[in-house]
Amino acid sequence: MGPLPRTLELFYDVLSPYSWLCFEVLCRYQKIWNVKLQLQPTLIAGIMKDSGNKPPALLPRKGQYLKSELSLLKHHFQVPIKFPKDFFSVIIDKGSLSAMRFLTAVNMETPEMLEKVSRELWMRVWSRDEDISEPQSILAAAEKAGLSAEQAQGLLGMISTAEVKKRLMEVTEVACKYGAFGLPVTVAHVDGQTHMLFGSDRMELLAYLLGEKWMGPVPPALNARL
Amino acid sequence: MGPLPRTLELFYDVLSPYSWLCFEVLCRYQKIWNVKLQLQPTLIAGIMKDSGNKPPALLPRKGQYLKSELSLLKHHFQVPIKFPKDFFSVIIDKGSLSAMRFLTAVNMETPEMLEKVSRELWMRVWSRDEDISEPQSILAAAEKAGLSAEQAQGLLGMISTAEVKKRLMEVTEVACKYGAFGLPVTVAHVDGQTHMLFGSDRMELLAYLLGEKWMGPVPPALNARL
Repeated sequence: MGPLPRTLELFYDVLSPYSWLCFEVLCRYQKIWNVKLQLQPTLIAGIMKDSGNKPPALLPRKGQYLKSELSLLKHHFQVPIKFPKDFFSVIIDKGSLSAMRFLTAVNMETPEMLEKVSRELWMRVWSRDEDISEPQSILAAAEKAGLSAEQAQGLLGMISTAEVKKRLMEVTEVACKYGAFGLPVTVAHVDGQTHMLFGSDRMELLAYLLGEKWMGPVPPALNARL
Repeated sequence: MGPLPRTLELFYDVLSPYSWLCFEVLCRYQKIWNVKLQLQPTLIAGIMKDSGNKPPALLPRKGQYLKSELSLLKHHFQVPIKFPKDFFSVIIDKGSLSAMRFLTAVNMETPEMLEKVSRELWMRVWSRDEDISEPQSILAAAEKAGLSAEQAQGLLGMISTAEVKKRLMEVTEVACKYGAFGLPVTVAHVDGQTHMLFGSDRMELLAYLLGEKWMGPVPPALNARL
């Protein structure tokens, strides 16, 4: 009998740049560590409401810090993050409800595309400072990820259905039950135990819990392939 | 000419368990990385007030998370952290004003003892759940760190002087000017640039900025010596 399969659930929202860092690291490591990665599109606004937490950037000094820190982390993680010019309009006003409903539909209908579509939405909002709230923005990301125009339209049509709305709400509630007060949240199921880890900076601790080797945010095997 | 000396300033308060993690990591790495480590005793209550931030544990779900996370990090970092039984009384009510004034006096009079006295205060409040607000508690930590009873008494006498009070306030203001909204804050002076890093989880990013190797919270060289 081989080693027991370990499962990692990643609860994320494309509005969260730290979710993007965590997502890329877990996508890079899933084969190296031989873990099953379950991507869980979640609504960060729902987590904030349920936990009573507030987006960190609302505190001016934290906002300044996030900006300067992300400009360092982008190099270290090799993820092309760029702060949107009008942060408050993008993150607070526009939000991610349609985008996360769309990813929920992708996850229900064509889960093998979820990684790519998620990444294209991040590329829009957190790299090229492009909208992700309008239907045509979401369609553009989906097609860039490799979905046909027809598939993308079909999925977009699903975001107003009760089924998709309910599913996104349920996943968000599951994250809250694990104790989420923000995103990303990684839930590791290892040796019959469940560990909830908050943030993109707990991947080394995750490796420790898995008994695997941490080789930094860009593991050498991947570096060689780049 | 040898390489330029790099300086790291660590702004910390013994009330902060993440400051302890950061402190131990930097103490372990200072020789490995050949950096000059300047320990800067700071008042976390002053940082919170000035930045408008609040202690994370005041949000119930964050408080629960911190507790469970620290119980994992203590093994990973090999730092014997134990959550105090009455967290609110210890952290919010009693605070660290006398302890941080005492460390300020130690830093002014006998800086070579600052590391050891800081560690003994953390051992009291964050490992053995002992008081650090009463004079006899502070004296006990100081003597355990290797100061004579006479020295410890002399330093304790200094904590009510204007000079010590002013110095702690000034260091706290410096941390705020660097953008602190919590502790620990590590300020790296590298190649004429200054980087402010928040938290104990930015040590790998720090290594990256220094062009040094990150070998986890317990570097092997040290592991061999333990």
